[in-house]
Amino acid sequence: MFYAVGLGLCDEKDITIRGLEAVKRSTRVYLEAYTSILMVSKEKLEEFYGRPVILADREMVELQSDEILRDADKEDVSFLVVGDPFGATTHTDLLLRARALGIQTRVIHNASIMNAVGACGLQLYNFGQAVSLVFFTETWKPDSFYDHIRENADLGMHTLVLLDIKVKEQSEENLIRGRKIYEPPRYMSIPTAVSQLLDVEATRKQGVLAPDSTLAIALSRVGSQTDGEQRIVCGTLRELAVQESSIFGEPLHSLVIVGRRLHPLEVEFAEVFAVNKDNLRNVARTVYGCTLD
Amino acid sequence: MFYAVGLGLCDEKDITIRGLEAVKRSTRVYLEAYTSILMVSKEKLEEFYGRPVILADREMVELQSDEILRDADKEDVSFLVVGDPFGATTHTDLLLRARALGIQTRVIHNASIMNAVGACGLQLYNFGQAVSLVFFTETWKPDSFYDHIRENADLGMHTLVLLDIKVKEQSEENLIRGRKIYEPPRYMSIPTAVSQLLDVEATRKQGVLAPDSTLAIALSRVGSQTDGEQRIVCGTLRELAVQESSIFGEPLHSLVIVGRRLHPLEVEFAEVFAVNKDNLRNVARTVYGCTLD
Repeated sequence: MFYAVGLGLCDEKDITIRGLEAVKRSTRVYLEAYTSILMVSKEKLEEFYGRPVILADREMVELQSDEILRDADKEDVSFLVVGDPFGATTHTDLLLRARALGIQTRVIHNASIMNAVGACGLQLYNFGQAVSLVFFTETWKPDSFYDHIRENADLGMHTLVLLDIKVKEQSEENLIRGRKIYEPPRYMSIPTAVSQLLDVEATRKQGVLAPDSTLAIALSRVGSQTDGEQRIVCGTLRELAVQESSIFGEPLHSLVIVGRRLHPLEVEFAEVFAVNKDNLRNVARTVYGCTLD
Repeated sequence: MFYAVGLGLCDEKDITIRGLEAVKRSTRVYLEAYTSILMVSKEKLEEFYGRPVILADREMVELQSDEILRDADKEDVSFLVVGDPFGATTHTDLLLRARALGIQTRVIHNASIMNAVGACGLQLYNFGQAVSLVFFTETWKPDSFYDHIRENADLGMHTLVLLDIKVKEQSEENLIRGRKIYEPPRYMSIPTAVSQLLDVEATRKQGVLAPDSTLAIALSRVGSQTDGEQRIVCGTLRELAVQESSIFGEPLHSLVIVGRRLHPLEVEFAEVFAVNKDNLRNVARTVYGCTLD
């Protein structure tokens, strides 16, 4: 059996009982380590599972899927994914490949940011499509996310913005020269994300993202149970842009652009996370049309 | 500490290690039992947790929140929710109430249908807002979901349709007479859901839901590891409407209305679930514009 096991969001204890049982039964255990990150080391996982863990980078998953699936028709193999196994297209590919080889598969679900974003207090059914924001470079500033945020905003819906991570990336020079030297991992911070969003707004000028009247909620390490690890910070885009990076906590970060379907109860829930509670209430009232006490 | 603990989707083994630890530490354990259902009995949960479990119906959660939160500032109390704790507004209320009473809270996330719907092979970032479909009665056929499906469809996005469940409901007569006699639980089936959708289309006539050219995917018991329990069935609305109820498996059911942003890889993944593979490919090609081999 080939198990795709979601690990949830934080550490070794976010796996489900069912997931842990599958891992303990498996002869080989892979950890997908490039679309997201856990907040614990591979060694910690190995100790907890009582099993060696093989790190699977993008190259291995995309080019050596048959090795990952080897003998999974005869024994149990687990492929661990941070969050839920259906978070990234690559994992669907692996399941399709297994199916083609006649290998039985089971998916063990877990929380992912796609549903745990509810921790910010906004109702999940008021979210439209999620978007990804990649690190801009001098020459590459892809901005199709802007159209998707606009589509959501036009309907009054919230948008979950997933921030880029760069793990095991090569510099352009090393790539050209074929040198397998990797850059240190980079995780997009909230100030960088907000600054990129406002840059695109300045170019596109459709009024989707207004510095002083668009509310946003920054999340980091959702679900972490260590005191002070999970951070949720709410404010206008300008308020978030000028905060010290440290108030947003450690990566991974996500950002929610708040849509017009903002409910007074959601504002009440978000108040405790506000950079400036009075301004939050003021914008919710005057821009979003919320009736507050 | 007041813990809101997600139980995941199926049975006692879908709780996370962290969740189980919180439950075992708690002096009182409540199970929210009206917005969703688990596939195991309360007794099975009690045996697994080694703790008595108090069923919390809507009345208790909405009217007796202070009893649920009692002493949670001094001892640990767990409130268990099928799926993720942020799936229903009521639980946000409970957390706000705890905050007002100065009680510390922790949320332990888990999979919910909002992310586990990825099991059907459609990419989560192509989903728009989710909608709920309630049982129609002679006199009450609320159809605002139709506008939301249209909003998603106009953008090419998929829609997750959550089907009604009626747990511990009173008949109109018993309600009027104040008799606490409850009807047996009812769970909306896929044929009922599709028939209600097509009824509303017949009235509203905006071409959002076409019997022969709108694709949909029915899901039941997502994440269940018992052989044959999880069911995923894909077809046009008409194909789904005429199937025997039994092919859709046991409740709970959900339905996905497939949007135009359908990717050939998603079709490939869905083929194995198709009522009629040739027709699925044909509709995907001619209506959805998918380029297939």
